[in-house]
Amino acid sequence: MFVAVIGSAICDERVAALAREVGREIARRGAVLVCGGRGGVMEAACQGAKTGGGTTVGILPGTDRREANPYVDLPIVTGLGEARNAVIVRTADAVIAVSGGYGSLSEIGLALKMGRPVVGLGTWELCQDGQPVDAVVRAGTPARAVDLAIALIGEGKRDD
Amino acid sequence: MFVAVIGSAICDERVAALAREVGREIARRGAVLVCGGRGGVMEAACQGAKTGGGTTVGILPGTDRREANPYVDLPIVTGLGEARNAVIVRTADAVIAVSGGYGSLSEIGLALKMGRPVVGLGTWELCQDGQPVDAVVRAGTPARAVDLAIALIGEGKRDD
Amino acid sequence: MFVAVIGSAICDERVAALAREVGREIARRGAVLVCGGRGGVMEAACQGAKTGGGTTVGILPGTDRREANPYVDLPIVTGLGEARNAVIVRTADAVIAVSGGYGSLSEIGLALKMGRPVVGLGTWELCQDGQPVDAVVRAGTPARAVDLAIALIGEGKRDD
Amino acid sequence: MFVAVIGSAICDERVAALAREVGREIARRGAVLVCGGRGGVMEAACQGAKTGGGTTVGILPGTDRREANPYVDLPIVTGLGEARNAVIVRTADAVIAVSGGYGSLSEIGLALKMGRPVVGLGTWELCQDGQPVDAVVRAGTPARAVDLAIALIGEGKRDD
Repeated sequence: MFVAVIGSAICDERVAALAREVGREIARRGAVLVCGGRGGVMEAACQGAKTGGGTTVGILPGTDRREANPYVDLPIVTGLGEARNAVIVRTADAVIAVSGGYGSLSEIGLALKMGRPVVGLGTWELCQDGQPVDAVVRAGTPARAVDLAIALIGEGKRDD
Repeated sequence: MFVAVIGSAICDERVAALAREVGREIARRGAVLVCGGRGGVMEAACQGAKTGGGTTVGILPGTDRREANPYVDLPIVTGLGEARNAVIVRTADAVIAVSGGYGSLSEIGLALKMGRPVVGLGTWELCQDGQPVDAVVRAGTPARAVDLAIALIGEGKRDD
Repeated sequence: MFVAVIGSAICDERVAALAREVGREIARRGAVLVCGGRGGVMEAACQGAKTGGGTTVGILPGTDRREANPYVDLPIVTGLGEARNAVIVRTADAVIAVSGGYGSLSEIGLALKMGRPVVGLGTWELCQDGQPVDAVVRAGTPARAVDLAIALIGEGKRDD
Repeated sequence: MFVAVIGSAICDERVAALAREVGREIARRGAVLVCGGRGGVMEAACQGAKTGGGTTVGILPGTDRREANPYVDLPIVTGLGEARNAVIVRTADAVIAVSGGYGSLSEIGLALKMGRPVVGLGTWELCQDGQPVDAVVRAGTPARAVDLAIALIGEGKRDD
């Protein structure tokens, strides 16, 4: 199982703590953590996964492996810029969004398009015509987020 | 000037009529229309642009030029799948979302990330922590959407 | 018809003159010129195509439209780095290599893989086990190169 | 260290035996094997690396993880088609080509462009103007190929 954690490259300590816990819970369940490989939420999640004895993959936007955070085991150097967001989501069976900015919003859109379950911890809420669209499953805690993500794998209609 | 029109590959006639009008207004202002090259909103926008004497670029996800709608002048065949969404947004100076599904949501995220103005006609509304995030500028009519898109070019902080 | 011209971003005047003539001949036959949008062979080919009244598409590697040469009508800003080479080749029906370095070599490989005919003007020669592999059709003049490229469209087994 | 092994998705047993040995030697030196994740040379190299206790990364062109060969530890599902070749090369510190077809030729071109050392075992030979271009370092045995690849890391001028 491959679970992606998405979120901003810069974040405050409260969000980092959530991401760290998400990473640890992913590792505890034996899943591989996939992320964008950079700082903030990505770094915290990788750190947590390593604490939990897990494996981390960082799919980097730039051309230099050194932009990976120190907790990435396997840096994939794409040179694709933001187009690499599609590779993160494709590689994952499920996506957990921890807070997150516009880049994460694009990954949520891609994940929903590709039929990957998306679980959110304090992330974007989506509405159409004034009505909430509950495509992102909300979780109250990191452990619950990981439980939900793993439980929902195979539920959606993946496009592969 | 290059203006992208984003929206679903399948849409009802009401949405198609809006997209057609957006395309025509883009052409009338001498801008090039950029889109994903397929059906639905993309096809209607291209049709409108051709009615208005404009030029249309279709940045296709697949490997076959024949997946372009008949109103695409210049089909760019990427073979990149959903990663081509980043190319659509990068190529454009501004983005107009007409309704739209998850693919469009990903393009809105990418456009905001890249500092392109995004104007919406009945598209996704975004919230964080229960509060609306008004990053997408709302327009009431196609003509107003195009006016806004063009007026906002150069206002944002583009990342290029 | 879409014909790609590939070659180095820096070249001497002799090679530029060939590329210019290739561009003009492409335009004269009513085909659209596709290229990487930058300097050297790409710029000379675009200049030639504009002299001949043609249309030019530049599929750029970076994130800034201003890296396009001044003869590009339609700059496609990919932000994909070298991965954009695949988009150039996919978009074209045939490829003409004018001299060229390692980037062009990669495009020749991609074109042959995708079943696009490749015509060479003083470009890479390929051997395996000491034997020449004549997958690239050699032309002695720009006009002949364009004639061959167009004649060979539809001959190969395209993978789309 | 990350070493890419490139070659055809279909190959005979002689070539597979070479690739298997290359994979094993990469693992023996503690490097991670990177490849396109599919059959033929890629599968044989991954099999060899696993025999040697190594780690294998498969950067897949399609959208389905199941296209990975059974010896891939970490399948990266790009959905990028042939554009994923650039990701394989970017991710690697050095590239070893075992025989190989047109896809491998494109990867050799990309590797030379990006300043990665390329070592060849019975792969493409390149000429310009009738003169051999010895950009690919020839090796007589798998062990020698891996020795050379690792020795040359850091020698080239990488563009990152």
